[in-house]
Amino acid sequence: MDKQLTSAYASLALDAGIGLREGAKLRVTGAPSNRELMYAIAEGAYERGASLVRLEYDDDRLARIRVDSSRDRYLDEESLLLRRSSEVYAEEGWSLLCLLGDEDPDALEGADQPRLARMRRARSSASEAIRLAQMASRVPWCVMPAATDAWAAKILGPGARGDDLWKLLAPILRLDRPDPAAELRAHMGELDARSRGLNELRLRELRFRGPGTDLRVPLAPESRWMGGADVTPSGQIFMPNLPTEETFATPDFRGTEGHAALTRPVRILGSLVSGGYLRFEAGRVVEARAERGAATLESYLGTDEGARRLGEVALVDSANPIGKSGMVFDSPLIDENAACHIALGCGYEGGFEGSLGWNDGEKAAHGFNVSLVHEDLMIGSPDIDVTGVDGSGREIALLRKGSFVV
Amino acid sequence: MDKQLTSAYASLALDAGIGLREGAKLRVTGAPSNRELMYAIAEGAYERGASLVRLEYDDDRLARIRVDSSRDRYLDEESLLLRRSSEVYAEEGWSLLCLLGDEDPDALEGADQPRLARMRRARSSASEAIRLAQMASRVPWCVMPAATDAWAAKILGPGARGDDLWKLLAPILRLDRPDPAAELRAHMGELDARSRGLNELRLRELRFRGPGTDLRVPLAPESRWMGGADVTPSGQIFMPNLPTEETFATPDFRGTEGHAALTRPVRILGSLVSGGYLRFEAGRVVEARAERGAATLESYLGTDEGARRLGEVALVDSANPIGKSGMVFDSPLIDENAACHIALGCGYEGGFEGSLGWNDGEKAAHGFNVSLVHEDLMIGSPDIDVTGVDGSGREIALLRKGSFVV
Repeated sequence: MDKQLTSAYASLALDAGIGLREGAKLRVTGAPSNRELMYAIAEGAYERGASLVRLEYDDDRLARIRVDSSRDRYLDEESLLLRRSSEVYAEEGWSLLCLLGDEDPDALEGADQPRLARMRRARSSASEAIRLAQMASRVPWCVMPAATDAWAAKILGPGARGDDLWKLLAPILRLDRPDPAAELRAHMGELDARSRGLNELRLRELRFRGPGTDLRVPLAPESRWMGGADVTPSGQIFMPNLPTEETFATPDFRGTEGHAALTRPVRILGSLVSGGYLRFEAGRVVEARAERGAATLESYLGTDEGARRLGEVALVDSANPIGKSGMVFDSPLIDENAACHIALGCGYEGGFEGSLGWNDGEKAAHGFNVSLVHEDLMIGSPDIDVTGVDGSGREIALLRKGSFVV
Repeated sequence: MDKQLTSAYASLALDAGIGLREGAKLRVTGAPSNRELMYAIAEGAYERGASLVRLEYDDDRLARIRVDSSRDRYLDEESLLLRRSSEVYAEEGWSLLCLLGDEDPDALEGADQPRLARMRRARSSASEAIRLAQMASRVPWCVMPAATDAWAAKILGPGARGDDLWKLLAPILRLDRPDPAAELRAHMGELDARSRGLNELRLRELRFRGPGTDLRVPLAPESRWMGGADVTPSGQIFMPNLPTEETFATPDFRGTEGHAALTRPVRILGSLVSGGYLRFEAGRVVEARAERGAATLESYLGTDEGARRLGEVALVDSANPIGKSGMVFDSPLIDENAACHIALGCGYEGGFEGSLGWNDGEKAAHGFNVSLVHEDLMIGSPDIDVTGVDGSGREIALLRKGSFVV
């Protein structure tokens, strides 16, 4: 990664992704092999007036060692460390930047799924405070891809290096343009306009139809379409996901009916799931299959009751740069932008009017799904049609052959 | 580092250094380039019944970036994160293993000392809870050297690799013996016998005499000689420092008088200090000089009032393997075992009878030094004589020409 690209990436992350403010505390998470990039971001943050920068490293290797070697009775054990840290991040309003790119993408491949799920559940529960703060946009956060050698080799073939993958990521992140932050802000404006248009339609249901898919996803009166940038209560504009091409809402999980074929592979709990199929009855997954990773999918669905229900529905034009590339990046952050998707797991408060501050009971009463987990599953493709239905039963064509027609 | 050495090191660290117990939570700290070794230790810990293992990485690079780039007004700023984590480590009784070996030994060389000291002071204050727990042996802890390429190159010359340094560390750590843990336990027994012998003498003062040195260090009636292994209140035996050749006590800081030449280089606040000289009056350093790193030494002395006063005095036979090697490892952990030393900064509660649980006022009233910092400074050599004086004024020769004679 050359100096110019490093500097452009750091600027994009801090100025557009996080919208870093004077005095901010910033946590940067990433793969150890991206340490130099993380240092460059730390330097940029201090230069922009950050008060404190902390670097944290992903470590699936350590998780794998624990899954393989720990005595069974300790797998659910967590330290107060994680809970207290999570609370402090939320209380102190840290800015959270996550560089997504595995050092060792196969670290958890073939791991004992029930054991792994127990570990994850304990971790997930302990880090609830900061997750809720992120979901409610109370802290600025941004997740961006960052190439690693291992990731490059996995999707581009043996011998490929991180730099080869950076060449593909740069245009997706607009890092090849003279002013990447400005380009992204303009793009965010377009997504925002699309969300406003969808919100004006006041849809009560979406229908997805395509090969292997016939799915009805109800929307609550409170469901709100969002996309692009987000904003904290104090007005700090941030971009939760870069790149982003989606327009999404939190549905009413209760009435989901029908079936859907998963159109792209997805990594769940560290293992690849592909050729998936889900069938819903009365809002719950009642049948799940996969050509690969069926046990992982089953284990995920068993995390809690909410893991079987929808927490997100997202519309994506397949003709966007990621969709058109035809590449599978083996990363939900990028791949979710290639196609329409649904998510099993917790809803996003920003996508459901008035839900900020509701307790679990209030959420359930409005059809807002609650869960410790959230995973995006692609159901879109250039063969999918999406139709909206409004309160009067009127049908409105939204996407035809994978592309927006409104 | 070959597989056999890795495995021997992990066993030594866990079985002898920490004395790991079933259900323990273990934190392992080290350089990123020693990650494979840290994984091996994590695996060994889980196999021995640890309930949770956490890896943390040293990061002087990040500290340097902050010193160089942060706005001045934020240098004293810390997050509650460090304070709360420190409290949890102490409350939950974590086992703390630290692999000492710099990835980048010069990261802080030439850094602005007053700015660095402000950062350190804030960090030090925030992590007080766990430091006190360690000092009082309430948690098991062990600091061991671990070779890195950068460290090897620094002391063995350009081109030297970590593996070259491991060849020197292995015999010092007894890793070349069939049962390193047993060898070390026997060695600890000898140090323990020496401590008992010294305690029976009930000394009230030590006198160091040699080239450039004429120093009197008073001992309190409560001063207690210790060495080798330590033990938690629940009876867990651990070895705070590996290797260790010292017998040490917490002196009465108030009456230190005279002057001492520092016989070996030492790294303070990240910078090397050598050719040092200290003069004490009424327990305080009133003059400090150094051929190299004088500003660093001055900055250290300014940390707080206790940084000018003694918190430790240690007797070391220069004829031990480290002393005899003639090597300067540029690491206090190893080099302090080459020669007698004193420490400027906080006293160690284990070396001062009854001090456990005293507040700062009670400590001061007994001559037990309180400070946020603690640094060992070598004053011993094969040219030094150490004489003890007991309550009746009787002089007892302890070391002659650097070697024990009692």
